[in-house]
Amino acid sequence: MLPDKLKEECGVFGVFGHPEAARLVYLGLYALQHRGQEAAGICSSDGQTLYVERGTGYVADVFGEPRLDRLRGEAAIGHVRYSTAGDSSLNNAQPILISGGQGRLALCHNGNLTGVTELRSSLAAAGAVFHSTSDSELILHLISRSKETELERAVVDALQGVSGAYSLLIQKADCMIAVRDPLGFRPLCLGRLNHKSQAWVVASETCALDLINAEYIRDIEPGEMILLDRHGLRSIQFAPGDAPAFCSFEHIYFSRPDSRVFGRSVMLSRQALGRVLAKEAPADADVVVPIPDSGVPAGAGYAAASGLPIEFGLIRNHYVGRTFIEPKQSIRNFGVKVKLNPVRELLQNRRVVLVDDSIVRGTTSRKIVQMVRAAGAREVHMRISSPPIISPCYYGIDTPTRAELIAANHSVDEVRRYIDADSLAYLSHEGLMCALEDNNRKYCTSCFSGKYPSKIN
Amino acid sequence: MLPDKLKEECGVFGVFGHPEAARLVYLGLYALQHRGQEAAGICSSDGQTLYVERGTGYVADVFGEPRLDRLRGEAAIGHVRYSTAGDSSLNNAQPILISGGQGRLALCHNGNLTGVTELRSSLAAAGAVFHSTSDSELILHLISRSKETELERAVVDALQGVSGAYSLLIQKADCMIAVRDPLGFRPLCLGRLNHKSQAWVVASETCALDLINAEYIRDIEPGEMILLDRHGLRSIQFAPGDAPAFCSFEHIYFSRPDSRVFGRSVMLSRQALGRVLAKEAPADADVVVPIPDSGVPAGAGYAAASGLPIEFGLIRNHYVGRTFIEPKQSIRNFGVKVKLNPVRELLQNRRVVLVDDSIVRGTTSRKIVQMVRAAGAREVHMRISSPPIISPCYYGIDTPTRAELIAANHSVDEVRRYIDADSLAYLSHEGLMCALEDNNRKYCTSCFSGKYPSKIN
Amino acid sequence: MLPDKLKEECGVFGVFGHPEAARLVYLGLYALQHRGQEAAGICSSDGQTLYVERGTGYVADVFGEPRLDRLRGEAAIGHVRYSTAGDSSLNNAQPILISGGQGRLALCHNGNLTGVTELRSSLAAAGAVFHSTSDSELILHLISRSKETELERAVVDALQGVSGAYSLLIQKADCMIAVRDPLGFRPLCLGRLNHKSQAWVVASETCALDLINAEYIRDIEPGEMILLDRHGLRSIQFAPGDAPAFCSFEHIYFSRPDSRVFGRSVMLSRQALGRVLAKEAPADADVVVPIPDSGVPAGAGYAAASGLPIEFGLIRNHYVGRTFIEPKQSIRNFGVKVKLNPVRELLQNRRVVLVDDSIVRGTTSRKIVQMVRAAGAREVHMRISSPPIISPCYYGIDTPTRAELIAANHSVDEVRRYIDADSLAYLSHEGLMCALEDNNRKYCTSCFSGKYPSKIN
Amino acid sequence: MLPDKLKEECGVFGVFGHPEAARLVYLGLYALQHRGQEAAGICSSDGQTLYVERGTGYVADVFGEPRLDRLRGEAAIGHVRYSTAGDSSLNNAQPILISGGQGRLALCHNGNLTGVTELRSSLAAAGAVFHSTSDSELILHLISRSKETELERAVVDALQGVSGAYSLLIQKADCMIAVRDPLGFRPLCLGRLNHKSQAWVVASETCALDLINAEYIRDIEPGEMILLDRHGLRSIQFAPGDAPAFCSFEHIYFSRPDSRVFGRSVMLSRQALGRVLAKEAPADADVVVPIPDSGVPAGAGYAAASGLPIEFGLIRNHYVGRTFIEPKQSIRNFGVKVKLNPVRELLQNRRVVLVDDSIVRGTTSRKIVQMVRAAGAREVHMRISSPPIISPCYYGIDTPTRAELIAANHSVDEVRRYIDADSLAYLSHEGLMCALEDNNRKYCTSCFSGKYPSKIN
Repeated sequence: MLPDKLKEECGVFGVFGHPEAARLVYLGLYALQHRGQEAAGICSSDGQTLYVERGTGYVADVFGEPRLDRLRGEAAIGHVRYSTAGDSSLNNAQPILISGGQGRLALCHNGNLTGVTELRSSLAAAGAVFHSTSDSELILHLISRSKETELERAVVDALQGVSGAYSLLIQKADCMIAVRDPLGFRPLCLGRLNHKSQAWVVASETCALDLINAEYIRDIEPGEMILLDRHGLRSIQFAPGDAPAFCSFEHIYFSRPDSRVFGRSVMLSRQALGRVLAKEAPADADVVVPIPDSGVPAGAGYAAASGLPIEFGLIRNHYVGRTFIEPKQSIRNFGVKVKLNPVRELLQNRRVVLVDDSIVRGTTSRKIVQMVRAAGAREVHMRISSPPIISPCYYGIDTPTRAELIAANHSVDEVRRYIDADSLAYLSHEGLMCALEDNNRKYCTSCFSGKYPSKIN
Repeated sequence: MLPDKLKEECGVFGVFGHPEAARLVYLGLYALQHRGQEAAGICSSDGQTLYVERGTGYVADVFGEPRLDRLRGEAAIGHVRYSTAGDSSLNNAQPILISGGQGRLALCHNGNLTGVTELRSSLAAAGAVFHSTSDSELILHLISRSKETELERAVVDALQGVSGAYSLLIQKADCMIAVRDPLGFRPLCLGRLNHKSQAWVVASETCALDLINAEYIRDIEPGEMILLDRHGLRSIQFAPGDAPAFCSFEHIYFSRPDSRVFGRSVMLSRQALGRVLAKEAPADADVVVPIPDSGVPAGAGYAAASGLPIEFGLIRNHYVGRTFIEPKQSIRNFGVKVKLNPVRELLQNRRVVLVDDSIVRGTTSRKIVQMVRAAGAREVHMRISSPPIISPCYYGIDTPTRAELIAANHSVDEVRRYIDADSLAYLSHEGLMCALEDNNRKYCTSCFSGKYPSKIN
Repeated sequence: MLPDKLKEECGVFGVFGHPEAARLVYLGLYALQHRGQEAAGICSSDGQTLYVERGTGYVADVFGEPRLDRLRGEAAIGHVRYSTAGDSSLNNAQPILISGGQGRLALCHNGNLTGVTELRSSLAAAGAVFHSTSDSELILHLISRSKETELERAVVDALQGVSGAYSLLIQKADCMIAVRDPLGFRPLCLGRLNHKSQAWVVASETCALDLINAEYIRDIEPGEMILLDRHGLRSIQFAPGDAPAFCSFEHIYFSRPDSRVFGRSVMLSRQALGRVLAKEAPADADVVVPIPDSGVPAGAGYAAASGLPIEFGLIRNHYVGRTFIEPKQSIRNFGVKVKLNPVRELLQNRRVVLVDDSIVRGTTSRKIVQMVRAAGAREVHMRISSPPIISPCYYGIDTPTRAELIAANHSVDEVRRYIDADSLAYLSHEGLMCALEDNNRKYCTSCFSGKYPSKIN
Repeated sequence: MLPDKLKEECGVFGVFGHPEAARLVYLGLYALQHRGQEAAGICSSDGQTLYVERGTGYVADVFGEPRLDRLRGEAAIGHVRYSTAGDSSLNNAQPILISGGQGRLALCHNGNLTGVTELRSSLAAAGAVFHSTSDSELILHLISRSKETELERAVVDALQGVSGAYSLLIQKADCMIAVRDPLGFRPLCLGRLNHKSQAWVVASETCALDLINAEYIRDIEPGEMILLDRHGLRSIQFAPGDAPAFCSFEHIYFSRPDSRVFGRSVMLSRQALGRVLAKEAPADADVVVPIPDSGVPAGAGYAAASGLPIEFGLIRNHYVGRTFIEPKQSIRNFGVKVKLNPVRELLQNRRVVLVDDSIVRGTTSRKIVQMVRAAGAREVHMRISSPPIISPCYYGIDTPTRAELIAANHSVDEVRRYIDADSLAYLSHEGLMCALEDNNRKYCTSCFSGKYPSKIN
């Protein structure tokens, strides 16, 4: 992805009841690679034993034939991760595999628990031993400490003790559990794969169902727990889920445009964001240039609503390797040039509307504006298809500190001057609601408003 | 790239007179990665000694700090390669580094020589020892056998003995030579980098100049040889270059859209191809959907000229790894699904015009049409922004045999039936000429016509 | 090592108070490589933070400059491991790094706890979450659950709950603890390194002190705990250590001959074993041939005491790689031939006494005898410098099951027939005591007697 | 091996007529690993095509199942190499695979040609293109330039043009050739493997025949060429071989003691060297300590002849990895300590005779003497089982320059003082002859005498 973007922390994918379970999870994770590129892991079960393989890098680099062959059995869960800088000295890889009061359990977690400092301390005081710094491990401790003997009850019991965002997959030798927190911050959907017998699939996004030809059944609901075992599927509503707080940023930026998330097409949401933005913030310009890849749908919406032509005036280089050596000498705007190159013929002497989904620190936007000017644009108008980000996310998105969020500390005009644009406009909160058709305020917009739907400390 | 595309065989990049020569070549090759993804190599010179590093994989995977540190000196040439299946038992990696009558020489070659069987035999009969199966090595043999003692004359002498396509970079300890064949099949351009002193840059495409902030000076002309040494730059026209045969496929598909190639913007060419195609082959449809990434510019041109809206109804997954494990079970259209996923909401109940740059075997087009239909499209009309490919390329493009080229053996309507489209149209030869503004017939269109601008055997 | 040898499970090494702590631990582990070849790990502390690096393979393969550079600080502990087949699905690598009631702790363990099934169950019932199948992790749980707030007291408290063999290194940000179990099964010694200020070193064997020029101070005593922090060294006798059970196999086979272990030179012990064996079981033969490398000292002792000449009639190939591909076709005695080759000229027409340290399953001995016969030996007499192994070890040696131990189920003459020797003799128990000068029965000989010095279940 | 030893430059191994040819070559190279540890390669033929795989590192690291599987066919040749520092920029790996006048040929070379500067120049002047800096490639050029059309005649023709040391294996699709130079500097022997049909084996040393159970037939004679094809084996004496110059250092140090080389057991030679040395240079001492591993046979001979006991007072650490990180701080005698550790109990208060095979620069000997003194030895007497090395080898041994050879520039007493021994004695020339029973002066001793059996420039 481009530098200076918010980062999703994970994606999860599970298959229950298929002879190629681990290979399907591998494919599912590949389709969810945009949700985390730094590590990947899969845990499978053959009914008796859990097998786990994890590594750093892309899914397709971590897993080869020998590793997939070792992941035996008809059930498997997997995880892709964006590793927060954090503490390298304890191991945060997922799936986490442990043994405790419930026997062996593996867990994959998308989201972020809130208010864990106290919980961690009290567990430590009670003798708990942590092998990672992740909040995810806490859930396993709570499950293991539950007095309930049945796994499903122990999980429900454990979840009473935590708050925040969690879309979870839990695997035991003979069953799999999928859970979504009561506010449903992160997406989680259920699918079915018709093989000889029916297999169940659980995924962060529907695009991962598509790749393996699984049929989308429905979203797992906020506050719902799904139990998969040899008796089939059972659903338990462990908490009311009627006041959800769906992450609006999934529609703005994170999810793939070909996914349906929270019951809506991401592509259609992004086009609508662009259309509403065009209405709210028209520009006296010649051409709309989306910043690829994430700005393209909103750019198309903006162009359609404004009547301006869309031009692909910035070309993206998608070839990447494990590492990239920067030149020792300074090359102007190098960090952006490695990813984007302007098409001078489409920009020269034109008044350009750049459309992007968000501005985080502003550093990359500034370089792109400079690059577009250097390519000959007469004017550069920046349009952002979401409101200014003024507050960190505590629900599973890696945001910089408030001090680094340019819009948290500067007016729109100050941001405009910093990024050196002729004009700058963000989408309004109302525009966001309108584009997402969110009359019932089901969406979390805390990063734009600073108002959090749950206690965060 | 998508399966079933023609493949460029190489890209070359050289820097002369810069203290970070090898690192700049590394960046240049990164920008040319689309011209060859299977191997990369760099040879540098510190004025006395040549250093070489080569490996298989992406540029950013092959080169890390230690390798770049070993490539000392102020001059360097590099190569990215698509490795033809060929013969694994002899080493075809480039740059080729040899020692002979001219001392040590390294060579990078983009293109393909023609009529080499006889040349190879006669060299072998004269005692030549080949370490590779590549035609490129032959050039080094001819240089080494030349009676001329000065390198530039020996190179001119050697080039009398070969025909076909060659954009070459040759490096000796104290000088660098860049050559383009008299018909100028493959692109090669000259740039300048303003550092303390001036450095010269030679590249297959201008997008590689852009990345390192080098200024584009001009194309190296057909039949021109450029010599770079401590006296500066010298140009020799070693053969008339007035009847060129520029590869039209560079504009249709190979080159990056942000490059200028043969003096024209590739982006503008592709938009024009789409516009002319819309005029020649309109479709009674609701929406234009380009096949990403290469079909996007022509799709945009088609949409603009036809008045139909453009929609990004196919989403591409750009995450790739070194290998990708396919599932053992068959998943319908799997090969394409790994790369493309449809956006059902944009396709459902619509009459769709798919725009692509070319059809080679037809297998991928067929899968895409099926995928778009399965996503709910009511009609699928395929439009191709180039004429039918009926004949192999002998000038550096990896084409399948004539038997595999679907258009070489089937009528347009047979192809339409095979790919299962409601209608199919290719751009005409005249349309191609028109879009490239090629009144003087400077372009090679042999893969569309079967008429070759030079003897090929 | 040769196939069919007993395997030591680990070695440990720690340094406290040296600016190159991790690099010295790396060297110490290299010197202890014979104690475990399958994985290696180091944890260091800079006084604030613990850093850990682990990997599979030889010490010199696991650690390169970048890893060692990441291991900052003046204190470090390390571990080499022979990985028991066990359960690959939970991670057993050491040092184990955890966070709990005592903050962050890292642990390295040589030895094996006994009677842990019940302990593990009771901890699990109390909510403990295990990330490994190792007994070592249990110690960390007990420490974390201790009501004692000071680390040293918590460790003492924890150790009341376990029995069996443990030579431990425990690291906290600001201190290091070394512990040896009350029976002192495994060795552990203390050394000092004179740098600007004094650094302390703790090692499984003295050969590791030698490599880094550290001075041997004394053994850590059975039941002793050493605490190293900024106040210096403190010793606590946490349990009486007056009835030790030193592992006799350390002298017979495991430890390096250049080490002093349990206060005795291993080399001198082995020579004495050979001398006593010669007295107990002379052979009417021409020549003594030790089986390299471990049989050489005893062979030398046997030769000296018997008056027979020693000849190096079996040559060992020490070149090894990560893997070794066996031929598909069967080559006679292949498994042994990869390691040993006879010198026909020294064996032909001779009556040979082969001297080895032990026989486990007998399979390798049989192949060696066959190989020596095939090389022309007239008679082959096998002499073993330890008593028959009849019972498994529960204190940290990887022994096969009783069913696989040839001497557990067969008489000496049956073993002789199986290995196809003309005569076979083992050292007697009394001979072992005599060679180790063990009047006070300080040594554990349970693998020879089946009598265990502590409860094992 | 220990630092400061002379290094053999290569070993070769070939199999003709066996369905597992490449796997047998892999094993043969493994047995010859002591002749070159830095690179390994195998070329096989299935009768039509040659397949080649090469890499850096140990044989067992370079070759895994996939690589061996690619090496199809019933004939194969292989090479292990010690890479001279030389020029990394041209590729010197073997087998060298080329295509020329004789079609495809692969070559493995043990030895070193002399007088090649002029030959290389004249070939370059005639247009030859070299891909390596090795003398071995020259042979392929000469073969390719021969007017002879049959391979065997072309090889004979080519060999007229070279002098020096060469034990060669040449492979063509349908035949294999083994050649030994007329002076027979390097060993090369012929063996037979009884499989369904008979397979032929050619090896540098007999220990490699032993590993695969091949029967030793005879040495390939100086000046002899063996041709293996579907008609069986044919021998051609292409030059008189009646005045050979067998490398005496093969017996002194290079070859494995379990090999027969030049018709003699290496082990017996080394024991004889030690016995003669004891007669020539007795020592008033208590104990003989061989420097392992190479000094052991001579040490045993010395002990036997002198009546002094042999003690293994220096222990060697055989665990090695790809790289070894040295500590930044200086550790006394570190380079030697990584490999050797003294057994204090065997050295303390004793007058020690150290026996080694040779002294090159003296640096390692000096460190060993210091180490033995530091371990408490009262006197240290060094005895060397070969004469002083005063002149470089030009026949395939990597020797330092004359300036670095301590004995080339210093008297024996000066060397003694440098290495800090109480006494030092080398074996005399006569003693060497006597131990090798070389009445007819068949051995090359040029490194001891400076008299070379052939012109060297």
